[in-house]
Amino acid sequence: MSNGKAKAYTNIALIKYWGKQDEDLIIPSNSSLSLTLDAFYTITNVSFSKNNQKDRFYLNKQLQNNQQSKKVYQFLDLVRKKAQTDLFAEVTSYNHVPTAAGLASSASGMAALAGACNEALRLNLSNEELSALARRGSGSACRSIFGGFVEWEKGNSDSSSLAHQIESNHWEDQLAMIFILVNDRPKTISSRLGMQQTVKTSSYFPIWVKEAEKDLIIAKNAIAYQDFEALGKVSEANALKMHATTLACEPPFSYWSPDSLRAMDEVRTLRQQGFSCYFTMDAGPNVKVLCQKNDAPAILQELQKEFLPSQLIIANAGPEIEFLERNVSR
Amino acid sequence: MSNGKAKAYTNIALIKYWGKQDEDLIIPSNSSLSLTLDAFYTITNVSFSKNNQKDRFYLNKQLQNNQQSKKVYQFLDLVRKKAQTDLFAEVTSYNHVPTAAGLASSASGMAALAGACNEALRLNLSNEELSALARRGSGSACRSIFGGFVEWEKGNSDSSSLAHQIESNHWEDQLAMIFILVNDRPKTISSRLGMQQTVKTSSYFPIWVKEAEKDLIIAKNAIAYQDFEALGKVSEANALKMHATTLACEPPFSYWSPDSLRAMDEVRTLRQQGFSCYFTMDAGPNVKVLCQKNDAPAILQELQKEFLPSQLIIANAGPEIEFLERNVSR
Repeated sequence: MSNGKAKAYTNIALIKYWGKQDEDLIIPSNSSLSLTLDAFYTITNVSFSKNNQKDRFYLNKQLQNNQQSKKVYQFLDLVRKKAQTDLFAEVTSYNHVPTAAGLASSASGMAALAGACNEALRLNLSNEELSALARRGSGSACRSIFGGFVEWEKGNSDSSSLAHQIESNHWEDQLAMIFILVNDRPKTISSRLGMQQTVKTSSYFPIWVKEAEKDLIIAKNAIAYQDFEALGKVSEANALKMHATTLACEPPFSYWSPDSLRAMDEVRTLRQQGFSCYFTMDAGPNVKVLCQKNDAPAILQELQKEFLPSQLIIANAGPEIEFLERNVSR
Repeated sequence: MSNGKAKAYTNIALIKYWGKQDEDLIIPSNSSLSLTLDAFYTITNVSFSKNNQKDRFYLNKQLQNNQQSKKVYQFLDLVRKKAQTDLFAEVTSYNHVPTAAGLASSASGMAALAGACNEALRLNLSNEELSALARRGSGSACRSIFGGFVEWEKGNSDSSSLAHQIESNHWEDQLAMIFILVNDRPKTISSRLGMQQTVKTSSYFPIWVKEAEKDLIIAKNAIAYQDFEALGKVSEANALKMHATTLACEPPFSYWSPDSLRAMDEVRTLRQQGFSCYFTMDAGPNVKVLCQKNDAPAILQELQKEFLPSQLIIANAGPEIEFLERNVSR
C-alpha cells in the first residue's frame, strides 16, 4: 500500500482564465494571474492498494457516487498511466470551505489530489511539473500549487502550460480579500460550459484574449512596483471584460444576480468615499473585494451595513501546497 | 410672424445606435432599427418673429434656462442657416411622458421641433430630408419622423444619414412594448458621453459595430417574415452586446441597476414559463419588454407580481410625425 497526503489552498484570479485553446489537455487561451488565499483549502489523502477493488472518493466523510467522482477518477487514470501502475485508489478529501459558501473548490481540491498522488506514487515531480499535472484535473488547480501571487503561463503543450510564483517581496502579505456571498439564485451554467460557449459563440472572445494578455502585463508591473491602486484597477477591469464576453454569446448569458450588482455598486461607492478597494467576480454570483490588509477591518465594517455577517468572509494570502505525509509499504 | 406646430412620437431601438463616426454631424458608426411608440410624444410649436429679442424655450409651460435650452438653440441656429433667416424663435413644447418615468424625450422632442420649424419656415423638406435635419438635434430623433418599424441608415454625410420606414404590412400593429421603470438610482452618465467613451476606449467597440450590422440584417429578415421570436431574440442579444461594450471601457461603466437585472431575469423566467417576450435596454436602468399585442395583458399581469403598477406602462406602435398647424403672416 502506498499513501500520500497534501493540503492545497484555493486561489482567486485577478487576471482571469477564461477560454481553452485545448479542451482535452486544458490549455487556456490566455495566461492568468491569481492570489492564493488561506481561508479555503482542501486536505486530501490518497492510498493506492491491491486491496482496493475499484476507486473510491470520500468528500467530507461522504462516499461520492460515480457522477460526483467522475473528475477524480479521470485524474486517477491519468496518474496511473504516468506511474505505470494499475492499483485502485481510495481518496479521502476534506474541503475547508465555510458552509453554504457555494465557492468553487475544484482548484484546491485538484491541487491537493495531485500533491497526494505525487507523494503516494513517488512521482518526484517538481512543483512546476506538479502544477502541469494538477491542471489536467481542473485548469485553475495548477495555480493552487503555489502561494501568494501566481502566474499561469498558458503554454502550448501539456508540459509547458503551468504556473509559477511571482516574486513580490511578500507584498501579498499586506493584501486581503473579502468575499461577499450572494448566492441568491442557483448557478445556471458551469464555468467549464460557460467558457466553452464563449469560445465557440462570443464575438468578443478574440478581443478578450488580447486584452487579458495586456492586462496581465499591467498586473505584473503593479506587483513589481507594489502599486495597489494599479493592481486593483486592472483586476476589476479585467473581470468586467471577462463577464462582458458572456453577454455576446449565442444565446447570451450572465453570472450576475441583482445582489452581485448591489455588491459591485457598493464597492464603487466605498471607493468614492475614499476606501481603496476593487472587486472581481468569477463564474458565479459572488463578489470578491481586493483591499489592503490594514484597510480590511474598516471596509468590512462598511460592507456589514449592506450585507449580513454570514455573507462576508475575510481571506489573507495563502501558502503553497503542503505535503503532509508519505507512507509507502510494499 | 411665421408659426409651425408638429407632434412626434418616441421610438425605442431594437438594433441599437451606439457610437458616432462623426460627433459634430451626428453620423453613427452603425445603422439601427427602431419601433415608434404611441405612449410618449412631444407636441411643439415654434414661432419665428421680428418681435422676438432672442430665442426662448418653454417646456411643459416652464421657461427653460440657457443650459436646459442649449440643444434647442443650437438646432434653431442650424435651421436659421438653412432658411437664410435671422429671426429669433419662441419654442413651446409639451412632453407627454408619464410623470417621473425618467424616459429620454430627446427623440420625440427634436423630431417635433424639426417638424415645427419645417412648417414655420416653409422649408418644404421631404420626410427623409426632415429626418436628416432632426438627426442634427439628437441622433435617434431622425427615426421619430416615421411610424412603425424604422431603419436609420448610417450613411456617410450630413444628407445621407437618415431614416426611412420599413415596409411590414402593418405587422407592428400586432406588437406591444411594456416599459418597466426601475429608476432606483440616478443616471450616472449620459448616452452622448457613454457613446463617446465607448468609441474612444472600449476594446470591444469595433466588434460591436460589425455585430450591429449583422443583427440589423437578421432583424429586417424577421420583420419581412413577421417572425416574432427571431425579432425578439436578435433585439435582446443586440442590447446585451451594446451594454457589454461599456464594461470594456476605461474606466468601465454600466447602465444597469440591481433592479434592471431583476427585470431582465423576470423576462427570462417568463420565457421559460412559455410567455413570448424579450427585453431591450438603452442608456439607463429601465427595461423594455417587446411582446405581441395579444400576449401583452397576460405578460403585464405576470410583471405586476414583481413590480408596482406605477412601474409598468404599455405602449403600442406609433405613427409618423404629424404636422398640426401652419400659420404664416408677413
